[in-house]
Amino acid sequence: MNKQVITQYFQNLQTEICQALETADRVGKFASDEWTRPGGGGGNTRIIQNGAIIEKGGVNFSAVFGEMPEVLAKRDGFGEGEFYATGVSIVMHPHSPRVPIIHLNVRYFEMQNARGNRRAWFGGGIDLTPHYVVAEDARFFHTQLKQVCDRHHPDYYPEFKKWADNYFYIQHRQETRGIGGIFFDRLTENQTFSLAQRFAFVQSVGEAFAPIYTALMQKNQDLPFGESEKQWQMLRRGRYVEFNLVYDAGTKFGLETSGRVESILMSLPAQAAWLYNFVPEAHSSEAQTLSYLQKNVDWVGSGA
Amino acid sequence: MNKQVITQYFQNLQTEICQALETADRVGKFASDEWTRPGGGGGNTRIIQNGAIIEKGGVNFSAVFGEMPEVLAKRDGFGEGEFYATGVSIVMHPHSPRVPIIHLNVRYFEMQNARGNRRAWFGGGIDLTPHYVVAEDARFFHTQLKQVCDRHHPDYYPEFKKWADNYFYIQHRQETRGIGGIFFDRLTENQTFSLAQRFAFVQSVGEAFAPIYTALMQKNQDLPFGESEKQWQMLRRGRYVEFNLVYDAGTKFGLETSGRVESILMSLPAQAAWLYNFVPEAHSSEAQTLSYLQKNVDWVGSGA
Repeated sequence: MNKQVITQYFQNLQTEICQALETADRVGKFASDEWTRPGGGGGNTRIIQNGAIIEKGGVNFSAVFGEMPEVLAKRDGFGEGEFYATGVSIVMHPHSPRVPIIHLNVRYFEMQNARGNRRAWFGGGIDLTPHYVVAEDARFFHTQLKQVCDRHHPDYYPEFKKWADNYFYIQHRQETRGIGGIFFDRLTENQTFSLAQRFAFVQSVGEAFAPIYTALMQKNQDLPFGESEKQWQMLRRGRYVEFNLVYDAGTKFGLETSGRVESILMSLPAQAAWLYNFVPEAHSSEAQTLSYLQKNVDWVGSGA
Repeated sequence: MNKQVITQYFQNLQTEICQALETADRVGKFASDEWTRPGGGGGNTRIIQNGAIIEKGGVNFSAVFGEMPEVLAKRDGFGEGEFYATGVSIVMHPHSPRVPIIHLNVRYFEMQNARGNRRAWFGGGIDLTPHYVVAEDARFFHTQLKQVCDRHHPDYYPEFKKWADNYFYIQHRQETRGIGGIFFDRLTENQTFSLAQRFAFVQSVGEAFAPIYTALMQKNQDLPFGESEKQWQMLRRGRYVEFNLVYDAGTKFGLETSGRVESILMSLPAQAAWLYNFVPEAHSSEAQTLSYLQKNVDWVGSGA
């Protein structure tokens, strides 16, 4: 795989997704910030704020390279060397508590050490965080992801769905961030897959984002809600903040390696709230949502 | 030092501080939650919400003991054993952006390993996070803390002020959380101090809290503010959340060792906000506040 080809692909993906989101939102426009990284490379952060449906969101592209950060050089005893990393990251926080938060990441990473050893892999995923879990939407979301996965390998969906359940888990709350989705990392070439096949899969994931999320935007944007739903949304966003700042590996890695802070923390919502020891009423839709925020919920009847 | 005496002292301190805060707030009342820890001990979490001045705050007391958490047993090769920890933790988030956020912690820790080795120490501190830094208040705050420290040792204030600057630092933002204060940990007995002298110092710190903070509440509670100051407050609270979830050692330790989540995260504000790449106007009071959020600002002219 040629890293320029991958980089160009991710750059185009960013543009296409921004266009699809602007079309679906009708009002919001992305503002674009180019930035460069002192150690090599840079990125383009595109932020949408105060759209008709999206309150705050970002579609980030970056391609960074240079000397390997110490934390990576130490991992697995790989040793000092050079790295190249490129990818697209998205988080969308809608105004309405009826429209879910979504997150996508697709990325390519390669590193080479002084002894000439080289490693290259893809990673990424898509996951959904509804403020209120609606079973029909959750089934739609997981079914779409399963179809994307199944086109590439029958093991992909069950394996990556499980990975997402485990990754997007707020340990101290004993709850998942949302209804999961798929998550995968270090997809290298091996006896089953070439790196080109891994790339083809990642492209399918990237291209699934806009149709899936714009469908969920359109389906739910006009549903009514009141103060109490808005308050619940703020509390769920508080949990989103907890996950991202306490657990998310990408966020931690970015902050530790002096990544561009405003691009990393675009994932945080415009506002969030914390109430002491809030427990929803029994049998409320809030309580029902909490009951779904557990690992191993089978949304597609696949036994996954 | 008798750990029952220390524990009783902290428990009384909690009650006295809650009373002083209720008197100063005039409206808010603390609600009390007793909790027990599965491994041994428990605590009493007192939360104030929707007072006249305080929007959300907590005054926590706990006394926990039992088998040492793995993370502690591994530290310095101390080995398995038993621990006892007791203390008071406070965070107050006021409604008005003109009233500062404050944090206090005083704690005692002892551990004993299978070989009969014993360690005991005090830790704690007080620090202030004004949404708008007002030089007069900052000088008052640091002068009060210096007086408390000077009664016990001339090195305490300069040393612990520096420790606070370094501890309450948001590395990825390159800014301090607020104007600091004093922070100290592992104050054991040594050639200069008995453990009783360390305890006397910690008592002075605990007793300084209520007079200092109620003075700042009263001085600033009636100052006017508008939407723009409120928005700035929300962004500063966002930074507070970032510090507590990404860096604060107490929060991390609590979450990792399955502490009582709602007591630990009482430190988070009722609401917080994030705007992409917000930069205050040059020469605004917001920009001036940021210019103060750096290490090594000498507020008392002591050369500290």
